[in-house]
Amino acid sequence: MQELGIVHRTINRASRADVEALAAFAVSTIHEAMGRLGLMRPYIRPVYPTARLCGTAVTVLLQPGDNWMLHVAAEQVQPGDVLVAACTTECEDGFFGDLLATSVRAQGGVGLVIDGGCRDVASLQEMDFPVFSRAINSKGTIKATLGSVNVPVVCANALVNPGDVVIGDIDGVVVVPASRAADVAESARQREANEEGKRQRFEAGELGLDMYSMRQPLEAAGLRYIDS
Amino acid sequence: MQELGIVHRTINRASRADVEALAAFAVSTIHEAMGRLGLMRPYIRPVYPTARLCGTAVTVLLQPGDNWMLHVAAEQVQPGDVLVAACTTECEDGFFGDLLATSVRAQGGVGLVIDGGCRDVASLQEMDFPVFSRAINSKGTIKATLGSVNVPVVCANALVNPGDVVIGDIDGVVVVPASRAADVAESARQREANEEGKRQRFEAGELGLDMYSMRQPLEAAGLRYIDS
Amino acid sequence: MQELGIVHRTINRASRADVEALAAFAVSTIHEAMGRLGLMRPYIRPVYPTARLCGTAVTVLLQPGDNWMLHVAAEQVQPGDVLVAACTTECEDGFFGDLLATSVRAQGGVGLVIDGGCRDVASLQEMDFPVFSRAINSKGTIKATLGSVNVPVVCANALVNPGDVVIGDIDGVVVVPASRAADVAESARQREANEEGKRQRFEAGELGLDMYSMRQPLEAAGLRYIDS
Amino acid sequence: MQELGIVHRTINRASRADVEALAAFAVSTIHEAMGRLGLMRPYIRPVYPTARLCGTAVTVLLQPGDNWMLHVAAEQVQPGDVLVAACTTECEDGFFGDLLATSVRAQGGVGLVIDGGCRDVASLQEMDFPVFSRAINSKGTIKATLGSVNVPVVCANALVNPGDVVIGDIDGVVVVPASRAADVAESARQREANEEGKRQRFEAGELGLDMYSMRQPLEAAGLRYIDS
Amino acid sequence: MQELGIVHRTINRASRADVEALAAFAVSTIHEAMGRLGLMRPYIRPVYPTARLCGTAVTVLLQPGDNWMLHVAAEQVQPGDVLVAACTTECEDGFFGDLLATSVRAQGGVGLVIDGGCRDVASLQEMDFPVFSRAINSKGTIKATLGSVNVPVVCANALVNPGDVVIGDIDGVVVVPASRAADVAESARQREANEEGKRQRFEAGELGLDMYSMRQPLEAAGLRYIDS
Amino acid sequence: MQELGIVHRTINRASRADVEALAAFAVSTIHEAMGRLGLMRPYIRPVYPTARLCGTAVTVLLQPGDNWMLHVAAEQVQPGDVLVAACTTECEDGFFGDLLATSVRAQGGVGLVIDGGCRDVASLQEMDFPVFSRAINSKGTIKATLGSVNVPVVCANALVNPGDVVIGDIDGVVVVPASRAADVAESARQREANEEGKRQRFEAGELGLDMYSMRQPLEAAGLRYIDS
Repeated sequence: MQELGIVHRTINRASRADVEALAAFAVSTIHEAMGRLGLMRPYIRPVYPTARLCGTAVTVLLQPGDNWMLHVAAEQVQPGDVLVAACTTECEDGFFGDLLATSVRAQGGVGLVIDGGCRDVASLQEMDFPVFSRAINSKGTIKATLGSVNVPVVCANALVNPGDVVIGDIDGVVVVPASRAADVAESARQREANEEGKRQRFEAGELGLDMYSMRQPLEAAGLRYIDS
Repeated sequence: MQELGIVHRTINRASRADVEALAAFAVSTIHEAMGRLGLMRPYIRPVYPTARLCGTAVTVLLQPGDNWMLHVAAEQVQPGDVLVAACTTECEDGFFGDLLATSVRAQGGVGLVIDGGCRDVASLQEMDFPVFSRAINSKGTIKATLGSVNVPVVCANALVNPGDVVIGDIDGVVVVPASRAADVAESARQREANEEGKRQRFEAGELGLDMYSMRQPLEAAGLRYIDS
Repeated sequence: MQELGIVHRTINRASRADVEALAAFAVSTIHEAMGRLGLMRPYIRPVYPTARLCGTAVTVLLQPGDNWMLHVAAEQVQPGDVLVAACTTECEDGFFGDLLATSVRAQGGVGLVIDGGCRDVASLQEMDFPVFSRAINSKGTIKATLGSVNVPVVCANALVNPGDVVIGDIDGVVVVPASRAADVAESARQREANEEGKRQRFEAGELGLDMYSMRQPLEAAGLRYIDS
Repeated sequence: MQELGIVHRTINRASRADVEALAAFAVSTIHEAMGRLGLMRPYIRPVYPTARLCGTAVTVLLQPGDNWMLHVAAEQVQPGDVLVAACTTECEDGFFGDLLATSVRAQGGVGLVIDGGCRDVASLQEMDFPVFSRAINSKGTIKATLGSVNVPVVCANALVNPGDVVIGDIDGVVVVPASRAADVAESARQREANEEGKRQRFEAGELGLDMYSMRQPLEAAGLRYIDS
Repeated sequence: MQELGIVHRTINRASRADVEALAAFAVSTIHEAMGRLGLMRPYIRPVYPTARLCGTAVTVLLQPGDNWMLHVAAEQVQPGDVLVAACTTECEDGFFGDLLATSVRAQGGVGLVIDGGCRDVASLQEMDFPVFSRAINSKGTIKATLGSVNVPVVCANALVNPGDVVIGDIDGVVVVPASRAADVAESARQREANEEGKRQRFEAGELGLDMYSMRQPLEAAGLRYIDS
Repeated sequence: MQELGIVHRTINRASRADVEALAAFAVSTIHEAMGRLGLMRPYIRPVYPTARLCGTAVTVLLQPGDNWMLHVAAEQVQPGDVLVAACTTECEDGFFGDLLATSVRAQGGVGLVIDGGCRDVASLQEMDFPVFSRAINSKGTIKATLGSVNVPVVCANALVNPGDVVIGDIDGVVVVPASRAADVAESARQREANEEGKRQRFEAGELGLDMYSMRQPLEAAGLRYIDS
């Protein structure tokens, strides 16, 4: 699957309409709508608390301590894209900073998810350029070894194909395959509508035990109440 | 100690007065007043920086990836309670989110401490519903296996009995046994008064070496000063 | 190198002018200007996001669970100094809190870097006393065993000599030897000027591929572009 | 619960017969027989692969970097006891080595479980003195601060009362309350007998799907088989 | 990609000849022959040091704390297969023990790779049933929730398709796509032959600097030798 | 201190006699004889349990994912040397394998300590070439960027100067400055003699409480014995 030294210039992006539809929902809602699949490992965190992104993936496969391919990837970025950078090994160096963010934004890119480190965090926050990373780290990188751009990558244990929709917020990062984007957005919409009703009932004091009809199954499972 | 499939409906809560007395102090002060015992491991962190809680524990023993017992526990919550959720194994799934928070608050609950993951963090912060957890994680949970409610639990390496006072702030989470709550609050009060005097002397430039009469014991221990 | 039971009262601090020159730059810029050496491991983090410090190191070698030497060190602090505390072993106890911060500030100290834990974080943020630590932890410490002050220490895998310039911001903590401070500041200045020009070109849409003349070396390395 | 500066000289040990009964079973079997409770966190590992222990707990509460209480505890050891050492904080120093092992064995002690570090591992293996620890570490400790002996402790997230049966092997460490020891041993015996029959059926090629009648519940849960 | 509640009964296994060819080589050699791709994260370790496996993957997607799908997978195992088990979240429970090993072996299976925990390690070693896991843990699991069998999975950050060749030894675990197995085996063979010649030259005292003609590029890169 | 692109060909090695004297002692004994300084962090572990080394350090500063400098260092190795490899950042790639071990041994080198990963572990064990590393990892490395040889390095938080004596066994790795080697060896000898006497007294049942006269200081510290 993964190959080195390759740049795919043509990828099938999820439609703009689907991306916009998904952008309206929280990551936790989309993850539920996905059937609880597609989530990156929770060590990927926003570099500032209000960071939020939703866009189509331009994928990057990096070598440790080397950010050459991020420059190669920047050229492939189209408006609405998110860079998703995996690495051939675990590396927390600072592959990405404010200059690259400036470049990516100039091409229309809307953020970065990286299974590695990031730096210039104060500037990124000032620019409001959302980055989700495994570390914050000043350590810079070299430009010496080929990786790839727009090949399928595994980022923080999630498979990402170029063109997939990637959504990140304070709860984490989820990947929606381009082919499922419309369905997942619709499912998220239903879920959210459904949740709003539940929220009001919870606020009014109704218990989950009753709302979800749990009392009988709990009793069947053997739950015992003790009063002393 | 720990038992599965049990809900104790009657617990001995620390008195409201004692809880309110303890609520006035920082966790670090209370931990000192406890003789430096009762602290949870520091991997338990507030999900937003200003989160703060103080209340009586309704304990929950969860199974991995399963939040059924949190719904059972919600019914046992009385005004001023804090849910304290342990797990039979290490699990960072998102057991708790804004709907459960709404339900717990509707019953009068004032927060959650969980040796597991939490999600919907942006909403929780907006609601100012304080959660202290080991992870932030979108991954949802099922409702399939019995744990227990209001049994003694070990949460982040601290023993918590139902009714104990649990206090959390940015420094961590500390547990005060119900029977010691009044004494610890009084001890914390004395400690804080004492600290205020020290703070003023430190501000005026007095050194700890003199304030705490350390020079002689340091010399006795063999400390040598070298001028070149 | 490291010795126990010693306090050096005379150290060679980097000049005030050099410290002020370095204070103008971000840690990531200084780290690059250092040739990418001198960085502490990235597990050292600011205890609040806006913490920033730059000063001359008064070094401390601590014993686990024991902050006696921080009081000894406080007396050696002169205006513009930063305490840099290493430990003879890994320990995340709360060695430092707001009282010590008050004392250090009263002596003219401007912050702390500690390969250990810190507490009273809410107060420290209110005081805007910058601390960079490996943990936030209420657990207090004793005063029983000698370490040293103003000996060379290894803090978070970086060697720190007394008098070195230590700079911390959200990206991390970097150490500049006193003898290199002027050169590094000048190099940082050039680097920053250079970066400003690049930023404008990136903003205008120029790619790193062209700005850094990467196309030919990428081709030489064998990079292949695929259009389907 | 936990108290400092206390040594209980009188504890209620599980009976010798119950300890011997439990000693015949693997930790995983006993943990199942306990209803899947009482297991220490899996970061506790044997310091050599064949280490195995089963005995009654003499508990120790240590301070970080300080093994004074292990000497106090050695005097409380009776034949068949296991030392179980918790710490008031996380500390991986080498609290225990071959001299202490010699002393504990001379009192009749049969091993150690410690939520801390251990050293002299080559000698311990030569002596076949089983130790289960969270780290192997040469770092020595001091003798300066009081902890306690034979108070309830939380060790690697498991509550241990003095006199409980503690069993360790390569799979982990489990704690059986003295009052449940006989029942758990009997339950383990039944479980093992039951497992032997299953093993033979598995060896003969029978599937768990049939042995445990899983096909119907899997179908009910919606499992779909696809042949292309 | 990942789907829940699905069992594919028909998969394209790499040929027996290719598996046998690959079985002759070390994981590190195969990983090089793959162009340094396809390696699982190094937290996956053999549960005993001499464990070694090479076979075709039957993949399993598990739910946390639930090993139901391992029983479903056992039925799909054919001679020469290796189970490769991923989990929808991070979970170190003991999903697998000696009974399941007996069952898998009875179907012709040759080992397990699991991004989770394993137990009964002493028995597994006695059986010489190789398991590579992220943890050793007595904690048992339930059988309540559907995952999938023979869907593509991401295991320890490596993509594994059903039928791929999976090779594990003390250096780690590598995945070779079925379609590349023959080529990779040939490339490994050449690499090993090549290494044997180098080994003899190294033994004779020749330096890598000369064998690989590094002196000129090192000088060109600016390496300076200093004699005092 | 650390500089890139430098090879020092002339270093001051500890004398052969001192190295041989130190080789007779366990790491834990030497660490005590050093006054409990000079120990590497305990994440450095032998790659096989019986690995043991003692020699003079040839230091190497590596770049992440790049082992070029190990080849440069091999030429600087003299009989009795140990390679000590630090990295400019955290990296667990497999920098070192059996070919390099063959080369180092051919030059007279006796082992490796590396704050990184190592591979070909089965071969290294067969050769009995001792390696102490932070990881075992098949991931290979490139040869592209300069580090340095025989500059002072910080390896796993310990400062190592070229020519220092480095000793490793199952308890860890300790560094003895060349100038202190004779004294430390003598102190270790005394310590070991002293320990032998203690061991015999412990075996005879004497308690540490009496041997070290701890009863009075424990009472003075407030220790209370309780009989019920």
